[in-house]
Amino acid sequence: MALRVGVVGGGQLARMMIAPASELGVEISVLAEESGMSARLAAERVGDYRDGATVLAFARGVDVVTFDHEHVPQPVLRALVDAGVRVHPGPDALRFAQDKLEMRARLAELGMPQPEWAAVTTAEELDAFLRANGGRAVVKTPRGGYDGKGVRVVERGADAADWFTALAEDANGGALLAEELVRFTRELAQQVARRPSGEMRAYPVVETVQQDGVCAEVIAPAPRSAGRVEEVAREIGVGIAEGLGVTGMLAVELFETEDERLLVNELAMRPHNSGHWSQDGAVTGQFEQHLRAVLDLPLGDPAPRAPWTVMVNILGGPADGALEDRFAAVMAQHPDVKVHTYGKAPRPGRKVGHVNVAGADLDDLVYDARAAASHFA
Amino acid sequence: MALRVGVVGGGQLARMMIAPASELGVEISVLAEESGMSARLAAERVGDYRDGATVLAFARGVDVVTFDHEHVPQPVLRALVDAGVRVHPGPDALRFAQDKLEMRARLAELGMPQPEWAAVTTAEELDAFLRANGGRAVVKTPRGGYDGKGVRVVERGADAADWFTALAEDANGGALLAEELVRFTRELAQQVARRPSGEMRAYPVVETVQQDGVCAEVIAPAPRSAGRVEEVAREIGVGIAEGLGVTGMLAVELFETEDERLLVNELAMRPHNSGHWSQDGAVTGQFEQHLRAVLDLPLGDPAPRAPWTVMVNILGGPADGALEDRFAAVMAQHPDVKVHTYGKAPRPGRKVGHVNVAGADLDDLVYDARAAASHFA
Repeated sequence: MALRVGVVGGGQLARMMIAPASELGVEISVLAEESGMSARLAAERVGDYRDGATVLAFARGVDVVTFDHEHVPQPVLRALVDAGVRVHPGPDALRFAQDKLEMRARLAELGMPQPEWAAVTTAEELDAFLRANGGRAVVKTPRGGYDGKGVRVVERGADAADWFTALAEDANGGALLAEELVRFTRELAQQVARRPSGEMRAYPVVETVQQDGVCAEVIAPAPRSAGRVEEVAREIGVGIAEGLGVTGMLAVELFETEDERLLVNELAMRPHNSGHWSQDGAVTGQFEQHLRAVLDLPLGDPAPRAPWTVMVNILGGPADGALEDRFAAVMAQHPDVKVHTYGKAPRPGRKVGHVNVAGADLDDLVYDARAAASHFA
Repeated sequence: MALRVGVVGGGQLARMMIAPASELGVEISVLAEESGMSARLAAERVGDYRDGATVLAFARGVDVVTFDHEHVPQPVLRALVDAGVRVHPGPDALRFAQDKLEMRARLAELGMPQPEWAAVTTAEELDAFLRANGGRAVVKTPRGGYDGKGVRVVERGADAADWFTALAEDANGGALLAEELVRFTRELAQQVARRPSGEMRAYPVVETVQQDGVCAEVIAPAPRSAGRVEEVAREIGVGIAEGLGVTGMLAVELFETEDERLLVNELAMRPHNSGHWSQDGAVTGQFEQHLRAVLDLPLGDPAPRAPWTVMVNILGGPADGALEDRFAAVMAQHPDVKVHTYGKAPRPGRKVGHVNVAGADLDDLVYDARAAASHFA
């Protein structure tokens, strides 16, 4: 009897589970938000993931439910568990990916290194946090959903006045998350896969390069990470995966500071952009690993297959055409580059694909991957 | 506008095109012989590939038609071409994969090294061939479809009496193919990808190990092939791809003889079992390469990603259960082995999956791959 995985959400992360599912011999089906989405090939039905009955009906046809995103509401997740559905990651883990204040509090309990942070409910409390933390801070809406994608750098409590007003008007109340503005030298990401039975496998820590708040490039493994950085990142990743009871893939975004500490920035409990390199650069790619983890199968080897792998995102796509119009040029000039596109319409800033290239000379690979990706601009 | 490939035939070769199509961003749809076949995820419709109207209707929805097998009749292929459908490989190439006598005659014209052969229409002609070739020969039905899968070793003309009788009763008439029984030291396979525009890429020659007439193991590249063997095999593969006008993947099965010649045994104009190693062992796997070739996109790098890759077929599957029942054992003991299963029910001798493992120590890899595959027995 074939193993059946159901993925809630039809985006590119669901799409990228299709290839390893097909290769391994796992049946995959998707509950998509609408027709024609990235994961349309496996879209078994279209429906609202916030509707318990819809998600439960979808879950009845599969052995385990997992996710393309972290937005399925807790009551829907709980109803699945109560109905006996295997859900990975489960609601007890996902709450920490859904609420940044809950995450900060739990990571503090676990003794994880973090930026200074506080829950603030008024401009005055934020001013107090600013005074204690150098006069600048990052303010985040814990659950997203206000403006500006929920992240703002502030210098005065009044800079977040509109968010405090919105909070006061929200029947659920709550607080904003204030975080120290970390002076970091670079950003890293650590991925760990964890099975329900507890087995874990850590990927090598990678360096992520952000542009305008969006992941642009990843180098795997992170340069100059051998030894202490690699070990500390792995300990953090493994500690969080275990401490939060994550099942499936966990990504921990990290700041490396000027004084050589690693601080936890964000978490994602699903395959993550920082791990796309592994599709072509690791013995076991993150999408296969996620499937194995949520099915509670023994995990694969996360070791790199080459000294270096470089991933560069394709953001936006051609202004006047389709990604496919550029295939001929990029493939002719870069026969060693692996092209991945997501079947999404180009739109400024949108993640529509990525390229991977693996090899021994990092400078060459970075040049090659950027040149290949630039064909799609 | 997404590129759309339509595959006629719903077997595992069509299934294994799904992963690279999804990753690259190519829409794939399959015309399957029946529901529930290996490539069911992409099965757009079920129908008879021998029916011109069915195949043409399927072809209307895609940019290019390619194949899971070589059995689509010439009149159906010609009707597609006449209707303006892009068909790769096309009928002018496929006829040489469909008729072994046509293949032998054309390879002779091209000056390719082959076993001694003759078209024989009577037991007396076969006896004459036997006298001229050491008293033993292989007799083949050029187009298959009689008994015994169409291959028989004979010592007398009378050993093929039933086939001659069938020939005489067949309105199409025709002849049998008699071939010298080659004393070979091992079997090799050479794959070449060729685009309609003429670009070609040759994979490294591999060694194939047959058991009971079925491919059991492949070692890539073939041990002790560096230099002359590699060069001669590539020249043969490239010469045939060009000479026969093949588009897509071509596999040439070769005998290596005691006197160190390479002789052409069989051809396949599609992805081939001898190339499954490339899914995990080459920069560009054969299924991605086939898609690129039939879409007339620049071809990818066929270079190996590791010194050695070993493929072992899973034949038959568990006598008392499903392949998935063995996933836990094989994955726990072989985290570095890539497991591929085809979503087919186990049946004695049936190809239901394979494993690949890549690395630096060939003896270890062979041991590892055989051990992993043996879990499925």
